[in-house]
Amino acid sequence: MNSFGHLFKIVIFGESHGESVGVNIDGCPAGLELTVEDFLPDMERRKGGQQKGTTPRKEDDLPIFKSGLFNGRTTGAPITILFENKNTRSGDYEKQRAVPRPGHADFVAHKKFGGFEDYRGGGHFSGRLTAALVAAGVVAKKLLRVGERLPVEVDANILEIGGEKDPEAGLQKAIDAKDTIGGIVECRVSGLPIGLGEPFFDSVESALAHAVFAIPAIRGVEFGTGFAAAKMFGSEHNDAIEDSSGRTRTNHAGGIVGGITNGNELVFRIAVKPTSSTPKEQLTLNWETNELETFSVKGRHDLCIALRVPVVLEAVTAFVLADLMLREQRIPRILAH
Amino acid sequence: MNSFGHLFKIVIFGESHGESVGVNIDGCPAGLELTVEDFLPDMERRKGGQQKGTTPRKEDDLPIFKSGLFNGRTTGAPITILFENKNTRSGDYEKQRAVPRPGHADFVAHKKFGGFEDYRGGGHFSGRLTAALVAAGVVAKKLLRVGERLPVEVDANILEIGGEKDPEAGLQKAIDAKDTIGGIVECRVSGLPIGLGEPFFDSVESALAHAVFAIPAIRGVEFGTGFAAAKMFGSEHNDAIEDSSGRTRTNHAGGIVGGITNGNELVFRIAVKPTSSTPKEQLTLNWETNELETFSVKGRHDLCIALRVPVVLEAVTAFVLADLMLREQRIPRILAH
Amino acid sequence: MNSFGHLFKIVIFGESHGESVGVNIDGCPAGLELTVEDFLPDMERRKGGQQKGTTPRKEDDLPIFKSGLFNGRTTGAPITILFENKNTRSGDYEKQRAVPRPGHADFVAHKKFGGFEDYRGGGHFSGRLTAALVAAGVVAKKLLRVGERLPVEVDANILEIGGEKDPEAGLQKAIDAKDTIGGIVECRVSGLPIGLGEPFFDSVESALAHAVFAIPAIRGVEFGTGFAAAKMFGSEHNDAIEDSSGRTRTNHAGGIVGGITNGNELVFRIAVKPTSSTPKEQLTLNWETNELETFSVKGRHDLCIALRVPVVLEAVTAFVLADLMLREQRIPRILAH
Amino acid sequence: MNSFGHLFKIVIFGESHGESVGVNIDGCPAGLELTVEDFLPDMERRKGGQQKGTTPRKEDDLPIFKSGLFNGRTTGAPITILFENKNTRSGDYEKQRAVPRPGHADFVAHKKFGGFEDYRGGGHFSGRLTAALVAAGVVAKKLLRVGERLPVEVDANILEIGGEKDPEAGLQKAIDAKDTIGGIVECRVSGLPIGLGEPFFDSVESALAHAVFAIPAIRGVEFGTGFAAAKMFGSEHNDAIEDSSGRTRTNHAGGIVGGITNGNELVFRIAVKPTSSTPKEQLTLNWETNELETFSVKGRHDLCIALRVPVVLEAVTAFVLADLMLREQRIPRILAH
Repeated sequence: MNSFGHLFKIVIFGESHGESVGVNIDGCPAGLELTVEDFLPDMERRKGGQQKGTTPRKEDDLPIFKSGLFNGRTTGAPITILFENKNTRSGDYEKQRAVPRPGHADFVAHKKFGGFEDYRGGGHFSGRLTAALVAAGVVAKKLLRVGERLPVEVDANILEIGGEKDPEAGLQKAIDAKDTIGGIVECRVSGLPIGLGEPFFDSVESALAHAVFAIPAIRGVEFGTGFAAAKMFGSEHNDAIEDSSGRTRTNHAGGIVGGITNGNELVFRIAVKPTSSTPKEQLTLNWETNELETFSVKGRHDLCIALRVPVVLEAVTAFVLADLMLREQRIPRILAH
Repeated sequence: MNSFGHLFKIVIFGESHGESVGVNIDGCPAGLELTVEDFLPDMERRKGGQQKGTTPRKEDDLPIFKSGLFNGRTTGAPITILFENKNTRSGDYEKQRAVPRPGHADFVAHKKFGGFEDYRGGGHFSGRLTAALVAAGVVAKKLLRVGERLPVEVDANILEIGGEKDPEAGLQKAIDAKDTIGGIVECRVSGLPIGLGEPFFDSVESALAHAVFAIPAIRGVEFGTGFAAAKMFGSEHNDAIEDSSGRTRTNHAGGIVGGITNGNELVFRIAVKPTSSTPKEQLTLNWETNELETFSVKGRHDLCIALRVPVVLEAVTAFVLADLMLREQRIPRILAH
Repeated sequence: MNSFGHLFKIVIFGESHGESVGVNIDGCPAGLELTVEDFLPDMERRKGGQQKGTTPRKEDDLPIFKSGLFNGRTTGAPITILFENKNTRSGDYEKQRAVPRPGHADFVAHKKFGGFEDYRGGGHFSGRLTAALVAAGVVAKKLLRVGERLPVEVDANILEIGGEKDPEAGLQKAIDAKDTIGGIVECRVSGLPIGLGEPFFDSVESALAHAVFAIPAIRGVEFGTGFAAAKMFGSEHNDAIEDSSGRTRTNHAGGIVGGITNGNELVFRIAVKPTSSTPKEQLTLNWETNELETFSVKGRHDLCIALRVPVVLEAVTAFVLADLMLREQRIPRILAH
Repeated sequence: MNSFGHLFKIVIFGESHGESVGVNIDGCPAGLELTVEDFLPDMERRKGGQQKGTTPRKEDDLPIFKSGLFNGRTTGAPITILFENKNTRSGDYEKQRAVPRPGHADFVAHKKFGGFEDYRGGGHFSGRLTAALVAAGVVAKKLLRVGERLPVEVDANILEIGGEKDPEAGLQKAIDAKDTIGGIVECRVSGLPIGLGEPFFDSVESALAHAVFAIPAIRGVEFGTGFAAAKMFGSEHNDAIEDSSGRTRTNHAGGIVGGITNGNELVFRIAVKPTSSTPKEQLTLNWETNELETFSVKGRHDLCIALRVPVVLEAVTAFVLADLMLREQRIPRILAH
């Protein structure tokens, strides 16, 4: 339920205001160098605390290694990484409990888990869990760099915010409107071999989409030309193979044909919805009184969660690809000394 | 690799010009009535042979039950359903072998499987395998109707072809251009309970997207407002809960919040690329001579594969939901007599 | 539920008196030569029709390849193999239905599947399903021979019947007593590399035991010295490593330490219970009348099912090991031409 | 690799001399009361520190809840439980490194993980990991008590030590011989419904044996009459059904027929080898010098590890059964308030 992968297996756990969030990685090859420092840049990118439009909740987000490492390297045994929650505010969650925040999981969580859910700050549904995803991504990215002659590089970037190519401009719309705003993030991966993925249920698109929708707030994913392909002619869309390496003249397929990587750059985009916690006043149902109430978010939140998504998208992409590479025996089970 | 599901498990197999295609379903509850007639309407929809713009390859597509049925009902043991391939033409595949068709999996299949792949008519990569998906969908749809007080109904329709709301008009563009064309298909599901899915890796979107990308030619999927959400403000996008059943005033979320069904209609759309086999002449590489060649498709093919996708999309949606319903104990393991 | 394996995945299906029994194998590397003839020796051993004490039900048991083969080799796509049931006798199963055969699954199947089970000849619980196991074993054995420099050879033999080292003598006891009898089968595997398996849940013992108990009538499994180890001192039981290849002076561990193969011969034994269908008269409950009845088996059955177990044990052992070898990248994903 | 279960999923992690050992449980129903006190009795039994013949390494073994609990109950989100390692002694592992302890995993771990393994005190192969198994068992046992009208009770006991029915007498043999000794442990489960398990790969025996062999030092498992069945006649071994509840006159089957629970007591036994760390001097290979050396264990160790196995066996049995009960919808996804 909270796990992913076949040979590079991940379980994420934790709650926003509980003890910690964390990740367990089972199947990481032995011999990968791993230090706290390796995690800092991506953890820092995820926090986004310096960016305009992102929440100022500050956590150290230093990874605490609980298992699977020895002498600075992975051992082949399962790796457990914790992030302690320090910066939680007690808050008056009890009072707000019967008033589900619009656009959040409060209502469905309550129904699904029968009222036993940890409702403080979203509990297990919190975006704080993306710290665990990013940590798994750090390990996977390192693995992708050692696995092949040509390193596999994963790179995600903001493509637009609120419909604007210039993220600042898009964010300004939200600031002006005293509201939150969505965006689009693109991911590109270079260095992949031909032949990852399977024709049907384990197509590269299936595996990536599966993992991508584990990121909160994602509403769509498209590969290559994506939805634009629905308007194209076949003669336009087909990519002509140019040489024996499989390089194609165009890349409408986004690097995947028949569910399999074709050796060209992997390209896909995801749509991120506007942050649910908007400063605007909104309507919702109080499930105790059964009356509609107006609701307005307290405290500071991200105006645009999309700004913090790129590093998370890179992370899930990296561990999906690490898993596929292991299945194709493209990453060895023991790394070189 | 070719399997899907946790409690309602599917394996699909077969080749376009081999003996047969088929599906094995493990975990279907005992006691479900199942006859050949149950399969005919959806198998007929999949063939699309009568529609303008679809291929006239005719197969009876009568399901042959090989296991798991007794006295017209499922037994709880694995169900095997075969479709024999009768209408295969020997063709001169050998001659064309070194000339990968643009937009098809010929090249990647060759690389991935080292030349051992069945290359006749796309082999295991063929759209013919969707017969197996549709068959699994027929079983799942029946199950979804018995599982709950309110039956779950899955309905997919063409939303646009070649950018035109009127499918005929979009298809005409392809006919006029002597080319193939893409389209968009929308799926709606009513009657779902609150609480299917999990917060992260087994979110409803993850499960559906995973299965949807098992359908050949799909380039994108979006839930609710999808990519349009990237341009929206939070106050616009959030759906206000109106009553204790969880019904929302709007349905921008497409029936899923935090990865969990919220009791509203499930709505999502997929982008279908134009059929790769266009009548237009195209360039490709001959991997024996290592020269570029012009290539033109012989025989008749679908001008617009999107036209045949709705029934396949319904099928994968149905078996994803059947699996999630079983996990939530919303479908019993033994049906009533 | 009816599947096994991670990278070499097997689903078995079918019923004793239904259309067929069969197996689907997903994940077999591409390029393995496979002909009907490859299956004949092991299918013949399984039938045991010529042996004294085995049932004379005759089926051709010719494998019918339905998918995954092309030009006599595996393609990398899922392989489906069917065995048609021809020699079924209509029988008067309806009459006997409410009278569960002692020692058989009739009663539990009825309860578990709510009366929807195929009750003819044991249905899906039938020993006939071992034809599917043996077929999977044939493929796995071939794979084990190509995967390594030293071929892996799997060999199972009767160790004792009815407590007698001489199987004939043990069988004679059953003949004399007009009863059925149990036995012990030993399996030895040579040529395994060091390092298969994992410390805990995927120990070699775990994987083998899991699969071994899929064989009907097995009541116990022991590795190396097995139950005798419970009476031994540590200094007796420990195997001293003799050289850098890991060869040990003794092999009390049966080739597995800490759940991992140690490069020595893998040795384990299984206990097979006496055939449930004894010619003796027995008591059972008629669940319609709710009265105890005497029951006596009609027709001819195996007096000693253990005699037919060795080839089945080899089969499950082979596919367990093929799966483990693939996980350790000891068998390539594409075989050499 | 280090995970088990379908709906009640367990991952164990940690090392003997690392930071901690622990377990992650995904899929535990929401609403189960869980306190530190619930764990103390079984953790205490596992330690065995008071028993004659068990090691005096003292750890507090207080479970630290890191996720999945709120207000003293499970939330439905993954549960993480840590046990910190405090009582580790630095030891001179470096010096001993090239001298694999006879009967331990030192040699295979070194080969399998290429020298990257944590070799201190057995690392991830250590018996200390059974603390994680026992913790998972505590949760599962509580679940089994709420899931059904009749609680399921799991009870394991020493059956014999060193061939003696009186454990004291068996242990005395080891003490007298200045050696270690093996034993047999029996597990009995009452209160199980009819119908758990599946005919082949997910038979109850398969699931239990799989998990049982995750316990270090286990060499065999037998159900019901087990290996003795190999000497029996069918008319002796078959259990006659006595009444409509499925109760049988005898219980040679150990509560499982055709892989399915039959409503009678579940009975099985496991063989535990003598502790590898015997005080006796032994031979082993120094893999640096490539010379044979005599080796003798320093420090105090269990003379009979079997004495500490019962609580671990109960634990794995409990989580296997919890998983099977969930699959059969015998335990609800949300417990009553």
